[in-house]
Amino acid sequence: MASSKQVFIAIIGAGGVGKCFLSQLETLAARRPSPKLTLIYISTSKKALYDANYAPIPFAGAIEELSRASQAPPALPQLAEYLAAVAPPAKVVLVDNTSSQDVADAYPVFLGKGISIVTPNKKAFSGSYKLWQDIFSAASTSGAKVYHESSVGAGLPVISTLKDLVDTGDRVTKIEGVFSGTMSFLFNSFAPTSGAGGKWSAEVAKAKELGYTEPDPRDDLNGLDVARKLTILARLAGLPVESPTSFPVQSLIPKELESCSSGDEFLQRLPGFDTQMEETKAAAEKQGKVVRFVGSIDVASKQVKVGLEQFDASHPIAALKGSDNIISFYTERYGSNPLIVQGAGAGGDVTAMGVTADLIKVLGQIA
Amino acid sequence: MASSKQVFIAIIGAGGVGKCFLSQLETLAARRPSPKLTLIYISTSKKALYDANYAPIPFAGAIEELSRASQAPPALPQLAEYLAAVAPPAKVVLVDNTSSQDVADAYPVFLGKGISIVTPNKKAFSGSYKLWQDIFSAASTSGAKVYHESSVGAGLPVISTLKDLVDTGDRVTKIEGVFSGTMSFLFNSFAPTSGAGGKWSAEVAKAKELGYTEPDPRDDLNGLDVARKLTILARLAGLPVESPTSFPVQSLIPKELESCSSGDEFLQRLPGFDTQMEETKAAAEKQGKVVRFVGSIDVASKQVKVGLEQFDASHPIAALKGSDNIISFYTERYGSNPLIVQGAGAGGDVTAMGVTADLIKVLGQIA
Repeated sequence: MASSKQVFIAIIGAGGVGKCFLSQLETLAARRPSPKLTLIYISTSKKALYDANYAPIPFAGAIEELSRASQAPPALPQLAEYLAAVAPPAKVVLVDNTSSQDVADAYPVFLGKGISIVTPNKKAFSGSYKLWQDIFSAASTSGAKVYHESSVGAGLPVISTLKDLVDTGDRVTKIEGVFSGTMSFLFNSFAPTSGAGGKWSAEVAKAKELGYTEPDPRDDLNGLDVARKLTILARLAGLPVESPTSFPVQSLIPKELESCSSGDEFLQRLPGFDTQMEETKAAAEKQGKVVRFVGSIDVASKQVKVGLEQFDASHPIAALKGSDNIISFYTERYGSNPLIVQGAGAGGDVTAMGVTADLIKVLGQIA
Repeated sequence: MASSKQVFIAIIGAGGVGKCFLSQLETLAARRPSPKLTLIYISTSKKALYDANYAPIPFAGAIEELSRASQAPPALPQLAEYLAAVAPPAKVVLVDNTSSQDVADAYPVFLGKGISIVTPNKKAFSGSYKLWQDIFSAASTSGAKVYHESSVGAGLPVISTLKDLVDTGDRVTKIEGVFSGTMSFLFNSFAPTSGAGGKWSAEVAKAKELGYTEPDPRDDLNGLDVARKLTILARLAGLPVESPTSFPVQSLIPKELESCSSGDEFLQRLPGFDTQMEETKAAAEKQGKVVRFVGSIDVASKQVKVGLEQFDASHPIAALKGSDNIISFYTERYGSNPLIVQGAGAGGDVTAMGVTADLIKVLGQIA
């Protein structure tokens, strides 16, 4: 059924990133005649658009058509069977634009059948170490490709840079940075290098209003998102980190507010705890520093940690702006001055960009 | 002769970068059994090591064996014939670790035969626009790959990032940065953000002593090296720049010293011109700024320029350290805060790293 220059695409997830990706995919397909890209499957968690005979789904309007669809998505093992039967499975790419653990858990099944995967889904690479091993051993056995640039820093060249350092034989000694756009925004406003800054609870409320936090801001403040990203980078740097909860992660949720029944209740009660954060900020100022929420990996001592640290105002981490991420790679070759990557690390368009760039890399290898 | 999982490597250039690359290649070959990498040619401008029957050259000791060789290198068209005959040419990669215009001019011949190229050689991509077109049309016709990450910023992910931005459909509006390790070092010492700083001529002499300049420092101070890098990035961003001399480039060589017969004479007479640079520095300080030697590309207005500009002390370009490069990509998707890449942009090991990483990418596509 497939000519050697045709590649079949299946997409799971049609939210913010999914929509941006589909638009980039449409542009890509229009600009590059070869390989011919054919969309044969797209789904949300509730609905799926596909056809037993693999009728191509036009890129334009796919999301609208999906919203009108009446089919429920097949179980993931059935989806893998369906995709593997369209062509040599080596010519099929699954694009997972969800953050679903269930989909992530099924990666070894898809990869084992030779289906390549590109995804921003952090869960696949920051879950149990066993899942990580299963994913890469399935890919290595079948020859399928798996790329996940956008799982850390969205479209910023973070994963690819770390892989290049390791693959060319450099020794990464330390990775340090601000890995959360939400945390970046909060601390750049709460403790700017220029002094002053708003009240902590007010900054959190503002960040939520601007859409910079999860619906419940505690999902950002618990540090787990950063811990997941650190887990991925540590593993790529060679540390067999067991899970994102197997190293110290500082939560910024006051103990008393962990049990709030809603994000709204949490925000309402947060001002009562502003003093704690004020003290942390003042302690840093006393040293002529500012406080930031960072993650770091010390490869030699195998220490991974996430939490508040103090930085001189002239430090690149302190000088960050808006909701930017910054990631510094210290290596043997780069010496005392790290290789630094900086910029927006969240948002539909830049996240989708990482996914599309990964897809282009996979196409170069399988088409 | 070749199994499908064997790739043949030919190397031109065995200087600083060449030696580091060979060492990285040896490590790579030892770590990755597939594809099997076989070195069949290595040369300097004077000597070549190769054999009519393509006897493999062991990686270890190749440079020493080359130094004892008595053969002169073949003419480049003959080399292309020799390499194309070993195997399907699609399984041959030419690694050009020189900065030779002659070798660069021959790229279309190699690529036209299906031989892939990886190189840090700026001359190939910053010479005439016709050579640029010939290189990419030869590659596109034959399917051969051509990668040149290290032609700008050494191993920093500059070319790959720009390509990803463009290929995924982002619109690059402006590129700006410090593209020369030498210029970075000179201005970070001459006009540090902390104030003070040494005399211009003394900083140039110090940079030469530390090995940060070309043998004749005028080859850094004329701005041509930066102009070449800007030419490459502008072309990748879609501007058909004719040559590195087709846009304004500010030279820091005083007119009176252009005709000095040697770098030493130049350095001896340079102190007589310190006043000019002091005035430039003072003018910036009066505005509360520092002066830096930067290159910039304004894509919309098609303006490329290289020279001195003033920056606030808090600007990332002003805050650069040592001999680091910094490159900022302003794009539609990234908005007002650019995507920034920063770190060492020169040196044998990090330049070779870019070449080795490119080779790994090519192997993924041809093996």
